[in-house]
Amino acid sequence: MDLKTPEDSKTTLTDLVLPGETNPLNNLFGGELLARMDRAASIAARRHSRRIVVTASVNHVAFNKAVPLGSVVTVEAKVSRAFKTSMEIFIDVWIEDRESGRSTKANEAIYTFVAVDDTGNPVPIPQIEPQSKLEKERFDAALRRKQLSLVLAGKMNPKQATELKALFE
Amino acid sequence: MDLKTPEDSKTTLTDLVLPGETNPLNNLFGGELLARMDRAASIAARRHSRRIVVTASVNHVAFNKAVPLGSVVTVEAKVSRAFKTSMEIFIDVWIEDRESGRSTKANEAIYTFVAVDDTGNPVPIPQIEPQSKLEKERFDAALRRKQLSLVLAGKMNPKQATELKALFE
Amino acid sequence: MDLKTPEDSKTTLTDLVLPGETNPLNNLFGGELLARMDRAASIAARRHSRRIVVTASVNHVAFNKAVPLGSVVTVEAKVSRAFKTSMEIFIDVWIEDRESGRSTKANEAIYTFVAVDDTGNPVPIPQIEPQSKLEKERFDAALRRKQLSLVLAGKMNPKQATELKALFE
Amino acid sequence: MDLKTPEDSKTTLTDLVLPGETNPLNNLFGGELLARMDRAASIAARRHSRRIVVTASVNHVAFNKAVPLGSVVTVEAKVSRAFKTSMEIFIDVWIEDRESGRSTKANEAIYTFVAVDDTGNPVPIPQIEPQSKLEKERFDAALRRKQLSLVLAGKMNPKQATELKALFE
Amino acid sequence: MDLKTPEDSKTTLTDLVLPGETNPLNNLFGGELLARMDRAASIAARRHSRRIVVTASVNHVAFNKAVPLGSVVTVEAKVSRAFKTSMEIFIDVWIEDRESGRSTKANEAIYTFVAVDDTGNPVPIPQIEPQSKLEKERFDAALRRKQLSLVLAGKMNPKQATELKALFE
Amino acid sequence: MDLKTPEDSKTTLTDLVLPGETNPLNNLFGGELLARMDRAASIAARRHSRRIVVTASVNHVAFNKAVPLGSVVTVEAKVSRAFKTSMEIFIDVWIEDRESGRSTKANEAIYTFVAVDDTGNPVPIPQIEPQSKLEKERFDAALRRKQLSLVLAGKMNPKQATELKALFE
Repeated sequence: MDLKTPEDSKTTLTDLVLPGETNPLNNLFGGELLARMDRAASIAARRHSRRIVVTASVNHVAFNKAVPLGSVVTVEAKVSRAFKTSMEIFIDVWIEDRESGRSTKANEAIYTFVAVDDTGNPVPIPQIEPQSKLEKERFDAALRRKQLSLVLAGKMNPKQATELKALFE
Repeated sequence: MDLKTPEDSKTTLTDLVLPGETNPLNNLFGGELLARMDRAASIAARRHSRRIVVTASVNHVAFNKAVPLGSVVTVEAKVSRAFKTSMEIFIDVWIEDRESGRSTKANEAIYTFVAVDDTGNPVPIPQIEPQSKLEKERFDAALRRKQLSLVLAGKMNPKQATELKALFE
Repeated sequence: MDLKTPEDSKTTLTDLVLPGETNPLNNLFGGELLARMDRAASIAARRHSRRIVVTASVNHVAFNKAVPLGSVVTVEAKVSRAFKTSMEIFIDVWIEDRESGRSTKANEAIYTFVAVDDTGNPVPIPQIEPQSKLEKERFDAALRRKQLSLVLAGKMNPKQATELKALFE
Repeated sequence: MDLKTPEDSKTTLTDLVLPGETNPLNNLFGGELLARMDRAASIAARRHSRRIVVTASVNHVAFNKAVPLGSVVTVEAKVSRAFKTSMEIFIDVWIEDRESGRSTKANEAIYTFVAVDDTGNPVPIPQIEPQSKLEKERFDAALRRKQLSLVLAGKMNPKQATELKALFE
Repeated sequence: MDLKTPEDSKTTLTDLVLPGETNPLNNLFGGELLARMDRAASIAARRHSRRIVVTASVNHVAFNKAVPLGSVVTVEAKVSRAFKTSMEIFIDVWIEDRESGRSTKANEAIYTFVAVDDTGNPVPIPQIEPQSKLEKERFDAALRRKQLSLVLAGKMNPKQATELKALFE
Repeated sequence: MDLKTPEDSKTTLTDLVLPGETNPLNNLFGGELLARMDRAASIAARRHSRRIVVTASVNHVAFNKAVPLGSVVTVEAKVSRAFKTSMEIFIDVWIEDRESGRSTKANEAIYTFVAVDDTGNPVPIPQIEPQSKLEKERFDAALRRKQLSLVLAGKMNPKQATELKALFE
């Protein structure tokens, strides 16, 4: 199977924050942002694998900055690393100032998807060749995150999590 | 005010077709597509003008191709021409085949937005300098469409619609 | 097939403007109004043809007047003219003042629908016999709009668009 | 204050049943129909009173007939009787067969609304003069329903519910 | 078939009031509350009968207290009495004060559901054995409500509605 | 400030999976489940702190089991540990079989919320005293998760993450 780049799966979902999607502080509701990121990430996973994909886990989402009503929000998703049948999707969320036109990073998130066939069984997918410096950093960190997730789930002996162990020595 | 290019306002809204958005034939409901195009177009208009913008008219939308449930749909909006306080937005809609990854043009639409201040009064906006061959064609046609719309609304004498008249001679 | 009148297909959709349907200026979002008009128009087209109908195009929508949160909005759709397998639907939108009870015209729109059989193939439909003065004007204008739309799509030679040409002479 | 007829407040909400509004049997979800009836009834109450209105109670809703996906549903609401500050709204729900064009009664419901001023205090409203035979029957029954509701809430001595008592003698 | 208690079917739906669900006075829209109660009640009916269930009627809903935007609302549904194939569901709605943590009763409602097989035919269901004092009162009142509903629908002679008649003597 | 137990903040959101909330495999869409968990978790955080709360991060969500259309889904959220101004919420998701009535664990998730005052500044909250064996395990693990999150964010030196380091020795 061919190698692909993160750029090959890049998915952009630019949309408004409408009144029905806000919390009592008049900012975009956390749950609605999670739903938008899930849709963008699933499209990136599908573009990479050309398969049906299902959400396997949400590894980390940091809500650093509130997104006010009426904002223009861009959710950008790219595959950061592929494993045998699963892939990690890195998502950046930007909001943009109407008057200056400047974009500011609001949040980021990491989702994992699995590619499946019509009966729901996992299938192998193409691997990733990162290009930019940021893509390479995210590619390397993805392995540590995978080991961590296996350790926390009790599916890997911490002593074998070589990438992760190095962090604490 | 500076000139801007259509690319400066380019807005991409890639999203899935979910079950709650389909008609009885299991295709994306016309009304839902109209709503998505309106949101993308309003962001493009806002990026061009850096002002509050309101929908003035939907000039033409052709539904050439049905968009089935589960499709990945990309709505791409760019300002095609700016007038004094209003701008024409050209919208292309693409669907993409999961297995081949190929994109096909599904629909196109033309919306007009007006830039307003906080009290709702129209304000002047930057003009457009088209770059590509397609952008130049759309820029030229925009004037004919504006004349046509003025004629049909009874606000312009057909004899003065020089651009338009030429079509019929 | 029998002749029908515009009144035979008249469809009334009176509903509130709820908070989840408004834009940042607290008026009904353009996209939501387009969706309501599409639903009302598709019912009018179905009442006229007694067939499955699909949106073919939105020919023109003018947003003349903002529709504030909490308004009572009436969308009224009637078939204005039938062609072989397609029909033009004329839509009037009214808002009504709570205290005086008076209705004001807010917008109007023109949609085209095609009648299809179960496999999606176009089927012939009854013709329209306009009754009132307004219905007759809209019936006549519908032919010009159809020619215009064929000309703009490059499917009719402008010189043959006799109805339309007359406008510019 | 002037007398009004039920027809003066008549509100028609004709709309489609979309896939996102159905239950597991592919019929219109009960909750969605209740919501549509509430919106239509509140408009009828507002047209009668020209005041802000709030739902006071839903007295009875019978779901006699399922409303399948894709149906055209008409909710028709009229004020059946006005009391001092509250009014009873009678709602008829019709579905219509696409091929024959025939309408069938699907459900009916009775809601009560109260007219209030800006601070939420009840205000007096015009009375109703029923015109048709059906309107007169509903007008008479409304008083029995009101007494019944007061008796069940423990706010009226059953012995004073003269209209109601007569039923059981 | 075994006897069951109301507690066996108890269903709790605690959720927020979001901006898209409010009316012009910034309180939870009546229609949205009706929809939530219908969903909770249908789950209680399903837990009692372990069958597909459909809404038969909404017998009474009193909107005693407005539910403001941002509230935490708890809808609690329990089967109050089972008949041959239908059951009455009693629903209590509570809102809770953020600062004190105290819950207040906001509304109550009574729905009737019928248990059906895959073809939509009614099927017999287990009976109810009420436990607490409140459950016993509601169990007794359910029979009066059923007779009343049959009388009002013209399906029972008022003279035979023994439970109900007693009220007026 | 008083100590509280996880049970004090327990929040139950039992609801149906409706057609508008499913993905192309007819299972509950990941994004919709994330949104429901976010709403339940925010209510638990609010019940514990009696403050306005905002989502700080989603630490981990495992989608172990698909949730089919028509399912009854119970989202149960409890505060597992409180820090100075933030708290960890542990969420268990159950689906229940209609015929047997049995519940199965479908997913679990961990969210972090921060309590804030009206101006958005963090405020101190009560601490947690876990009661059951499971609550104690989750309480202990919460500290490791917090250290891990600080390490991954570069805000804590891995050598000081004593709880976490122990895992790898």
